[in-house]
Amino acid sequence: MTARNDRFRPPAPKLERPELLLGELSGLRLSGVAAGIKPSGNPDVALLVGDAPMAVAGVFTQNAFAAAPVVVSREHLERTRGYAVAVVINSGNANACTGPTGERAARAMCRETARLVGCADEEVIVCSTGVIGQKLDVDRVIEGIGLAQRSLADGEEASRAFLAAIQTTDAFPKEAGRRLPGSAFGVAGVCKGAGMIEPNMATLLAFVATDAPASPEALRRAIGRVADRSFHAVHVDSHASTNDTFLMMSTRGNAKAGDIGYEGALSAVARRLAWLVARDGEGATKVTTLEVRGAPSDEIARIIARRVATSALVRTALFGADPNWGRFVSQVGNVPEAGDLSDLTCSVQGTVVFERGGPAKFDRSAVSERMRAEDVRIMFDLARGSGAAQVMTSDLGYRYVEVNAEYTT
Amino acid sequence: MTARNDRFRPPAPKLERPELLLGELSGLRLSGVAAGIKPSGNPDVALLVGDAPMAVAGVFTQNAFAAAPVVVSREHLERTRGYAVAVVINSGNANACTGPTGERAARAMCRETARLVGCADEEVIVCSTGVIGQKLDVDRVIEGIGLAQRSLADGEEASRAFLAAIQTTDAFPKEAGRRLPGSAFGVAGVCKGAGMIEPNMATLLAFVATDAPASPEALRRAIGRVADRSFHAVHVDSHASTNDTFLMMSTRGNAKAGDIGYEGALSAVARRLAWLVARDGEGATKVTTLEVRGAPSDEIARIIARRVATSALVRTALFGADPNWGRFVSQVGNVPEAGDLSDLTCSVQGTVVFERGGPAKFDRSAVSERMRAEDVRIMFDLARGSGAAQVMTSDLGYRYVEVNAEYTT
Repeated sequence: MTARNDRFRPPAPKLERPELLLGELSGLRLSGVAAGIKPSGNPDVALLVGDAPMAVAGVFTQNAFAAAPVVVSREHLERTRGYAVAVVINSGNANACTGPTGERAARAMCRETARLVGCADEEVIVCSTGVIGQKLDVDRVIEGIGLAQRSLADGEEASRAFLAAIQTTDAFPKEAGRRLPGSAFGVAGVCKGAGMIEPNMATLLAFVATDAPASPEALRRAIGRVADRSFHAVHVDSHASTNDTFLMMSTRGNAKAGDIGYEGALSAVARRLAWLVARDGEGATKVTTLEVRGAPSDEIARIIARRVATSALVRTALFGADPNWGRFVSQVGNVPEAGDLSDLTCSVQGTVVFERGGPAKFDRSAVSERMRAEDVRIMFDLARGSGAAQVMTSDLGYRYVEVNAEYTT
Repeated sequence: MTARNDRFRPPAPKLERPELLLGELSGLRLSGVAAGIKPSGNPDVALLVGDAPMAVAGVFTQNAFAAAPVVVSREHLERTRGYAVAVVINSGNANACTGPTGERAARAMCRETARLVGCADEEVIVCSTGVIGQKLDVDRVIEGIGLAQRSLADGEEASRAFLAAIQTTDAFPKEAGRRLPGSAFGVAGVCKGAGMIEPNMATLLAFVATDAPASPEALRRAIGRVADRSFHAVHVDSHASTNDTFLMMSTRGNAKAGDIGYEGALSAVARRLAWLVARDGEGATKVTTLEVRGAPSDEIARIIARRVATSALVRTALFGADPNWGRFVSQVGNVPEAGDLSDLTCSVQGTVVFERGGPAKFDRSAVSERMRAEDVRIMFDLARGSGAAQVMTSDLGYRYVEVNAEYTT
């Protein structure tokens, strides 16, 4: 394959250090090491270990070609009913489409981790990300796990090492975290993924943890809502990877803990991570939030928002900072479930461009100027109910084509 | 708006003169004139008139913001139960999202045409294509209709004038036609559209006619199947225009004519026109046919083919001539309706790249070389039934972004 061309690389966003890092939560240690899976020699084995069994809930890819680690992790979480002591991750190879050999490799990663940290095999969750359809060099990964176990630590450096070892084509690191107000606890997380950058190098892996007490049951109840407001609300292209995994964990797993009082903080952290994924969406220059309200139901609002987000015409208009309401509105018109749209209003960055079914007068160049921001908001109001939804999408520019077409044989 | 940049314009395809042109069918006359709707001064009013009432069937956009001419034409076809004497078209302005004024303008176009050719208003079909949301200068169009009526003729020149007057952003003319074997009759058609190039300039308009006898009823029965094999099987992006119209006509309309014996020819002509649309799909360099077979049903096969066609990752891989089976296969895995994919086989240009659920060994650079052709075929076999479908898609390259992002305020 040829080296990637960088003619069109947009500037990275300004990133501030989060209030709290994953490695600053109490009750867990992290590490990331280079085991020689990535040809570049970059870190590629990461380990997260709880001092005690952690409560864990997971959301996994729905792709029919779910990778071996996804199959194994789902099985482990079911067996333990939502507890885990360790999460082991390799990057550089997705261990997907690798058949029974791949599943044996995923199980071997769990077994070695379990042996080293002293827990049962099924108390280990395993994730992989990287090239599809190539045999994983399990000996190297096993060696890497040993090194990672010896490097476990807490704090900023360990956080960053862990994050570096899970990344593939990410243009910048993705981390978020905050303290829970009026409490000693906090929520923090990291993720990797630049949209579904491509199945060969793709995958969203996201780990959000808290050191506040939680039961597996409460985390399971919360994770669907948190995912809906964050990772499920991101659209870069219409492709889901074979390896997508989002884990929500509490280092103070406790079956008797009641409802989670800090779901808002979990959502906020996950949402920030999802924003970073959209922002890194393969040459994206901005993140656009498509907001639908006044729909007959939340579900219909979500269908509309997703449908607008999937339009290459909409996404190129966003790249071009073009307040092209014809593209936005006619794509809503393409959603059969939307029903009557005679009262549809559309606004871009707060300016009404289409009002109650007809074009509105507005200053195109002023709105275009405001669409050059890093955050753009397009709102659709159907004026027919209280259904609402939001989807974040990246724009589609030359860099998207460059990344995805010029990465070739 | 700024002039369009042409850095990335790909070469046009080699076009041969069809065996038969629309203007060479017996029983109809055509014209195309410049009425001053397009700022460029290019032809923008087209007229097609039958010597006698023609049998007509139509397929129109499903977009909720159907343009005024679509609303009026649907109504007229219903009233006449499938007969028309004339079709009048303007380009340069879509007369969409224009409210009651727009509908009055569409009706005025029909009235003027009816007056000039001597038929009832409802025996006229009207189409518009061009910018959305701007008032149509109906006086200019009316004047253009007069000029067009005086220019009506048959033969090659009239065909080309008609075609030129319906085009907007088309990079090349789209026409097809053939004689019916062992008969004096033929099938011929023209169309405009470069995919849903954009709602502001978009729209597929397609007119396929025959001088063989047909009843409106038989045309209606056939048009759904013909559209499924042609225009409905083209995907450029996930956007349908407000003005899409496909008409199938017989200049020998006869309620007593039996079943159409030449549906294959209608399909072939429509399919060639659809191929030209995909080939002109906004900077496309090739047409890729995605073929699904062995599916539980035709419907599921169609869902899979369309889903693969909508993937920007797949379409950039096609642009890059990259036999990236991970992208192709994992997108099939994203179709919940597909069910069990453990026996899925995928081939690219005849070479198996993924066999019965696992990667196959193949010569990547040889397949990549063959993907540089103008016609690429990717086949998916689920090995589970007899359901089959085909979708044509254009690839997604720099020119797509250029056309769609740099056309701005």
